Amino acid sequence: MKHFHDIVAYRRAVRKYHDDPVPDAVVRRCIETAILAPSSSNLQLWEFYHVKDAAKKQALVEACMSQPAARYAPNLVVVVARHDLWRERCRANLEFVQSLPEDEPDEKPIKAARYFTKTIPTLYWDFFGVAGLLKKLFAFLVGLRRPMFREVSASEVRTMTQKSVGLAAQTFMLALAAEGYDSCPMEGFDSRRIRRILGLPRGAMINMVISCGKRAPGGIYGPRFRLPLEKVFFEV
Amino acid sequence: MKHFHDIVAYRRAVRKYHDDPVPDAVVRRCIETAILAPSSSNLQLWEFYHVKDAAKKQALVEACMSQPAARYAPNLVVVVARHDLWRERCRANLEFVQSLPEDEPDEKPIKAARYFTKTIPTLYWDFFGVAGLLKKLFAFLVGLRRPMFREVSASEVRTMTQKSVGLAAQTFMLALAAEGYDSCPMEGFDSRRIRRILGLPRGAMINMVISCGKRAPGGIYGPRFRLPLEKVFFEV
Repeated sequence: MKHFHDIVAYRRAVRKYHDDPVPDAVVRRCIETAILAPSSSNLQLWEFYHVKDAAKKQALVEACMSQPAARYAPNLVVVVARHDLWRERCRANLEFVQSLPEDEPDEKPIKAARYFTKTIPTLYWDFFGVAGLLKKLFAFLVGLRRPMFREVSASEVRTMTQKSVGLAAQTFMLALAAEGYDSCPMEGFDSRRIRRILGLPRGAMINMVISCGKRAPGGIYGPRFRLPLEKVFFEV
Repeated sequence: MKHFHDIVAYRRAVRKYHDDPVPDAVVRRCIETAILAPSSSNLQLWEFYHVKDAAKKQALVEACMSQPAARYAPNLVVVVARHDLWRERCRANLEFVQSLPEDEPDEKPIKAARYFTKTIPTLYWDFFGVAGLLKKLFAFLVGLRRPMFREVSASEVRTMTQKSVGLAAQTFMLALAAEGYDSCPMEGFDSRRIRRILGLPRGAMINMVISCGKRAPGGIYGPRFRLPLEKVFFEV
């Protein structure tokens, strides 16, 4: 196994691949690793679609504006943020917490139950953005007096979901790198068309499309550019 | 070095730590690795603040609602999404592209220049959300005829930034795990108070606060819960 830093450094956005696909078992294994990523309130609102059907794949390439990273990719994986499934995922967490042996003398399970039946629904429930605006006002008023969570609007809660799903997407790409495979994360796509291809409801957001394969010559566009550490890291 | 999967599996949300802090050099090294994560259009709109000043740290704990993961942490790192710096980061990318030797016969540098001076500003520029709404309408109309990028509203572009910064945050936590250290990602905080503590402008978004240290007994709250793979992974 390569050193962790080497794995991260090996990952580059690859836009030309050899023809051989990543074996299904490798894709599956990398996703098994990816879903160990943390997520907001452990809701795990992610889904991964490995698109293998030729017609669907062609439609997906077109929905990715036929960009080279999609066109030349042997494998395409769509990472979806299922914000619409928050109730179901709350329930799954609650059932898990309640299934734990009750030999602990503390209040953690009770607290967890309250969290998944009260706190999260209060934050995630919305009605065409109106409830979010009211929550925003409430957070502002409370925040005048004491520290208060403020990312309560409908779009901010959706952002939280997208952010969490991204953690799994990055872990997936690093897992591919650890296995000696390459990837390219894409955000330039038509999310509405991708939802239609995958038969997903409106509440599902496309987080990324990740192409996978083995890098071919010319697959990496130029040397890596990163800002110097002093521009982005501060000890205060 | 541990196997990549073991590193990912080792990472758990840790809420009680031993007193010994993570050495500064380790934090720095992990951030050097973290910033190799990919980002939307390579804008790298991330910043990492390792808060060492005692008064600032105490204020930060309070801004994190004094939750145990912050209160007991020897180190706290604030991950910031500097959406407001997109112009500067466009310029840095442009300068890099223009600094490359021009021995290539293709059009990549010209395309890249157009990308950072036209495409990105068109997407990122906004005026109190109004331009975003117009862009949204435009994308809808074009999208009736051909595949079209739709995440063009002000809040959707900000979401894209938060998502990218999250990729670096997850890489940072995995790097800590690879070094044998622990972390806990926190989103339950008062972002306005944290901005004030760090002296950041309004356009800066707090992506996460990450506590770091070495896990102490009882630092992990119960066994890990993940949905079974069949609930989140599909071959289509």
